[in-house]
Amino acid sequence: SKSYNIAVLPGDGTGPEVVIEGKKVLSAAAQKFGFKLNYEEFDFGGDRYLRTGEVLPDTASDQLSKFDSIFLGAIGHPDVKPGILEKGILLRLRFELDQYINLRPVKLYPGVPTPLKDKGPEHIDYVVVRENTGGLYTGTGGFTMKGTPDEVAIQSMVYNRKQVERCLKFAFDYTKKRNRKNTLALCGKTNVLTYVYDLWERAFHELGAKDYPEINRDYYHVDATCMWMVKNPEWFDVIVTGNMFGDIITDLGAITQGGMGIAAGGNINPEGVSMFEPIGGSAPKYTGKNVINPLAAIASGAMMLDHLGEEEAALAIEAAIMDVTANKLKDMGAGRMGYSTTEVGDLVAERV
Amino acid sequence: SKSYNIAVLPGDGTGPEVVIEGKKVLSAAAQKFGFKLNYEEFDFGGDRYLRTGEVLPDTASDQLSKFDSIFLGAIGHPDVKPGILEKGILLRLRFELDQYINLRPVKLYPGVPTPLKDKGPEHIDYVVVRENTGGLYTGTGGFTMKGTPDEVAIQSMVYNRKQVERCLKFAFDYTKKRNRKNTLALCGKTNVLTYVYDLWERAFHELGAKDYPEINRDYYHVDATCMWMVKNPEWFDVIVTGNMFGDIITDLGAITQGGMGIAAGGNINPEGVSMFEPIGGSAPKYTGKNVINPLAAIASGAMMLDHLGEEEAALAIEAAIMDVTANKLKDMGAGRMGYSTTEVGDLVAERV
Ligand SMILES: CC(C)[C@H](C(=O)O)[C@@H](O)C(=O)O
Ligand SMILES: CC(C)[C@H](C(=O)O)[C@@H](O)C(=O)O
Repeated sequence: SKSYNIAVLPGDGTGPEVVIEGKKVLSAAAQKFGFKLNYEEFDFGGDRYLRTGEVLPDTASDQLSKFDSIFLGAIGHPDVKPGILEKGILLRLRFELDQYINLRPVKLYPGVPTPLKDKGPEHIDYVVVRENTGGLYTGTGGFTMKGTPDEVAIQSMVYNRKQVERCLKFAFDYTKKRNRKNTLALCGKTNVLTYVYDLWERAFHELGAKDYPEINRDYYHVDATCMWMVKNPEWFDVIVTGNMFGDIITDLGAITQGGMGIAAGGNINPEGVSMFEPIGGSAPKYTGKNVINPLAAIASGAMMLDHLGEEEAALAIEAAIMDVTANKLKDMGAGRMGYSTTEVGDLVAERV
Repeated sequence: SKSYNIAVLPGDGTGPEVVIEGKKVLSAAAQKFGFKLNYEEFDFGGDRYLRTGEVLPDTASDQLSKFDSIFLGAIGHPDVKPGILEKGILLRLRFELDQYINLRPVKLYPGVPTPLKDKGPEHIDYVVVRENTGGLYTGTGGFTMKGTPDEVAIQSMVYNRKQVERCLKFAFDYTKKRNRKNTLALCGKTNVLTYVYDLWERAFHELGAKDYPEINRDYYHVDATCMWMVKNPEWFDVIVTGNMFGDIITDLGAITQGGMGIAAGGNINPEGVSMFEPIGGSAPKYTGKNVINPLAAIASGAMMLDHLGEEEAALAIEAAIMDVTANKLKDMGAGRMGYSTTEVGDLVAERV
């Protein structure tokens, strides 16, 4: 029987708690569908940094790249200045492991409260493919005369054709495989970002026309995208966009699907090792209280199994989550679920 | 009695129709409150461009800078490639007239349908101060090896201390004058844009601590801002941000306040001439049908009067708009108001 080696990074705050529930459900799925999961834990995160002074060992990505996949809890510690751990662990791993895709399904599960009026699961079901290692995230830029009245700060959005094309290729393939409306929408700002999104737009239409004639191509400015995600989310099938716009629209999407308790994502290197994470933060104030919602971590576990090729197991977990949101949980927020973190994990695991 | 010279740019599509209603209401207010408005029209827009080949005469901003204010309909023509008119007219005027503030009230008027569940006028009432002439909008950047597989595109977000500071100063002053929650929130991405938003953050806290100790200072990442604008809009009082993030969050705000039919904005040069505009586009498919919603144009007219110092007149127009949305209009969308464009103008004008 198949067996997968999973690196587990529980991380900070409530990360370890949701990771335990994720593993519980993954193990149930493994048993049911006849494969094995071997876990190895790594203590990267705020506690380790405060103890050792080291954000991430230089060997980390080398070590992690030997695994079949990475399962991450949350990074972020109240005693560490914002930015250090996010950049030093999360972004560094995304970059060093060349996880150039951030895959974020925006799906409203039955029973989950959405802040949008008159929208149900039939309206909110699309996927954002966010470029994950380029653009404004590369740290390209700097200061002139920092700290003086003449200070200038520059931050550059840089993309080359290869980065854009491999991301678009993933998005087209994904749209085809998803086989829903066969429509890929590029989200950009071609009327203002006339260099970077001109490149994206040309590559989009060239690649689409050449290799994916059966996929419809749409285009929305990023500002309009945000409006339609709120007003007419049912318009979307798959959206592809650069790193910064992707960061923004995926958080907006997350809130429409019920928020951080439920939204999952994958940092994907299609040719290498990928990393799956609930997209909420470490929620330090709920740490150790057994009240945080583990469904986002569980859903990211399902994404991981799908990515590993265990599609049936992934679907079974998703079905179990839907049954639990539809029939059990009162709310998705920490402390308002009507069940504890552990109980929610049990509920999903039983159903798998 | 006071008298103001207003440059009117009706522009494209439905722009001229909504401008007529705007002027109708402005004139009613002028009569009531005892001031005079002298209008001069300029034909800048898509039709003129298609006729003459010139996007904007080089003398335009010189001419316009002699007026007390500018009242704009809409720019954008279906027969002109997207980007040309937006950049060549709208952005060029913003830049040449140094309108470094984009002021966007996000206010849900009574009776206006919002796509947000359980939110009413008491929850959606805040203002975004968007920096309007810098950042990613400067066109700084370019291509290397364009059109080849090795192409690189760069687009830079550039800010100097002066640009940031004058925008922050406006935002702090505005928050103080608004006198509601006395809370100014900076919207940025300090954990990733470690140069540009580091400058914003330092300037924000330095200026705030020095000159505005009575104003509370908040900070939100742009991705979180989008979430809370949907989930908890009542948290906000005034938000200040850079140009690109401002573009995104103001459109998101607009949809929560009822969409393009109702959202108004001002491009403000506090020391020079400002330009007020409904933020919807030219909506070419509704042109000449007398169905477009003129309330956004009317509301931007009210903002203009407020800016000119005619605060009472501005409040009277706002009150009239609220009476009309609360008691008359069925919907804010073109063709769904239950009244024609002209009738809506009449309804507001009567009430002023
Ligand atoms: C924590 C932060 C650096 C990160 C990002 O901006 O990518 C997060 O917002 C996300 O979307 O995964
Ligand atoms: C038309 C476009 C260039 C403009 C912008 O991006 O600023 C518009 O979206 C706005 O917000 O006024």
